Amino acid sequence: MKKIINDAETIVDEMLDGMVKAHSDVVKRMPNTTVIVRKQLSETPKVGIVSGGGSGHEPSHAGYVGKGMLDAAVAGEVFTSPTPDQVFEAIKAVDQGKGVLLVIKNYNGDVMNFEMAAELAEDEGIEVKQVIVNDDIAVEDSTHTTGRRGVAGTVLVHKAAGALAEKGGSLDEVKAAAEKLISQTKTLGVALSPAYVPGSGNPGFEIGDEEMEIGIGIHGEPGLSREKLKTANEIADLLLNKLTAELDLLKGDEVAVMVNGLGSTPLMELYVLNNRAADVLEEKGIQIGSTYVGEFMTAIEMAGASITLAKLDSGLKELLLAPAQTAAFIQSESGS
Amino acid sequence: MKKIINDAETIVDEMLDGMVKAHSDVVKRMPNTTVIVRKQLSETPKVGIVSGGGSGHEPSHAGYVGKGMLDAAVAGEVFTSPTPDQVFEAIKAVDQGKGVLLVIKNYNGDVMNFEMAAELAEDEGIEVKQVIVNDDIAVEDSTHTTGRRGVAGTVLVHKAAGALAEKGGSLDEVKAAAEKLISQTKTLGVALSPAYVPGSGNPGFEIGDEEMEIGIGIHGEPGLSREKLKTANEIADLLLNKLTAELDLLKGDEVAVMVNGLGSTPLMELYVLNNRAADVLEEKGIQIGSTYVGEFMTAIEMAGASITLAKLDSGLKELLLAPAQTAAFIQSESGS
Repeated sequence: MKKIINDAETIVDEMLDGMVKAHSDVVKRMPNTTVIVRKQLSETPKVGIVSGGGSGHEPSHAGYVGKGMLDAAVAGEVFTSPTPDQVFEAIKAVDQGKGVLLVIKNYNGDVMNFEMAAELAEDEGIEVKQVIVNDDIAVEDSTHTTGRRGVAGTVLVHKAAGALAEKGGSLDEVKAAAEKLISQTKTLGVALSPAYVPGSGNPGFEIGDEEMEIGIGIHGEPGLSREKLKTANEIADLLLNKLTAELDLLKGDEVAVMVNGLGSTPLMELYVLNNRAADVLEEKGIQIGSTYVGEFMTAIEMAGASITLAKLDSGLKELLLAPAQTAAFIQSESGS
Repeated sequence: MKKIINDAETIVDEMLDGMVKAHSDVVKRMPNTTVIVRKQLSETPKVGIVSGGGSGHEPSHAGYVGKGMLDAAVAGEVFTSPTPDQVFEAIKAVDQGKGVLLVIKNYNGDVMNFEMAAELAEDEGIEVKQVIVNDDIAVEDSTHTTGRRGVAGTVLVHKAAGALAEKGGSLDEVKAAAEKLISQTKTLGVALSPAYVPGSGNPGFEIGDEEMEIGIGIHGEPGLSREKLKTANEIADLLLNKLTAELDLLKGDEVAVMVNGLGSTPLMELYVLNNRAADVLEEKGIQIGSTYVGEFMTAIEMAGASITLAKLDSGLKELLLAPAQTAAFIQSESGS
């Protein structure tokens, strides 16, 4: 797999610098760390929101640092959890005396390292709480996870937690809102081609020229089943049937929909998927409160897409539609 | 090449519907056309801005329809110019009595069909002017073009023209600003892998496992040279040296920088390119007024990237930084 890189050893470092140079009005990098923080923390002290994870999922997570979402994101090496010391640096950088919420995707390494960082911070008197996102309904346990994996739905958790923190919610309130959203957010994806970790030269998995894998993880972890490639409509139907069943969605319920590209699938194809997804939900009598189509949580250059449904209530919907100003997610005051 | 589609014959239609379903607060589709228009035209009548082209370049062009950019975008079939009747529909839809500016990428088919549409509109008493974007410095003529091709820099022209129209500029003023920006906007790209037109089954071109092509067109038209794949820094240096020479940039000049992914190149790699690009410009004493990193003008799933430099003055910079609210490009009132 050809890549536009200099050196696999320095790719994360160069990416972070290149990102800050593109968005220096919004973010900065903490010197000698892999932590991207808001250029200016909120003028009114508020709960800090920190997330992060392995690199290779761009724009996650640094793309969501800014007003109304994350205060800091911590980058690990590609497909590798960030270390506790880096997460600790992020917590210290964003604490304004109101406590810090960690939004962790459910992978064993991430959970362990973020928890260790929380302990270090608590030893210094910083109140830290955490939520663990486990939206991927494909498998109960996987090669990297006990329980379900955290995938694209994490971005909606960033949005909701960030919005409530911005509005002055307490640490307990922000945590409760994030947990409520997590419990109602489910994702399932398909992969058509693997990702290649820079420097490895090898694909994350092998897949046939006419095959797709349902329920693949964002690091190429095994999914539910390997099948012959279906049409876009068949894929949307398959994913939505599982998601709506999992969420027990009923006529009249309202959802947020995210159609997320995994890296190399063109936006054209994502819109074709969304076209069907919107129709299926309409047929089921389910309202769509907001739709997000694009690349939010990628797996380097994996081809494929995931669909996320988040069941909304008026409170969660308001949080998702609140203003945000980050590199990868901008929502203006007026909405449109 | 595996694709998430239903039928190559209906892919543009489904894509447009899927896009409108995702962004129904911003855009609508004119019935029985491939025209995406702003959901609501400006309350104060203003110059209309229309662009478009073949599909396969998403988010171009419909992604830029909305307040502060385009009033309408016309989609052709994949890599095929939109027909004059469709462009005519767009012109009629956005005319508010102040005239309409067509922003055309320089391809023979596009120029011919947009010009025919302009004639049809003028026969109905609508004043229409046009600008032709030819930012690609790779080749003087190509398989689809007499003169230089229009590529990613077109998005900056949408932005500037849209901003001036929103501010109440006359048709002549908007055209003059767009032409000034075009004359100062240059792009050059590299491709690592080809695009596959849906339904064709064939790659747009063949390229070796360790090769890249410099100056490739966004439909896979031949470029300047085929070379061994270089590092990200070498690629950035090569592109920037040609671009800064072409623009006669001097110490103290200010530019907008766009690092554009051609379809399947990960954002990580685009940021690595931008990291070097920013350093090179700094070394040359050239100021960076604004930076855009992401997918703006793609070639389906082509791997590769282009860099665009637009030489700014205070007027053009103000137009680029003015508010915009579209599906793919949002700039808020406050900046950040």
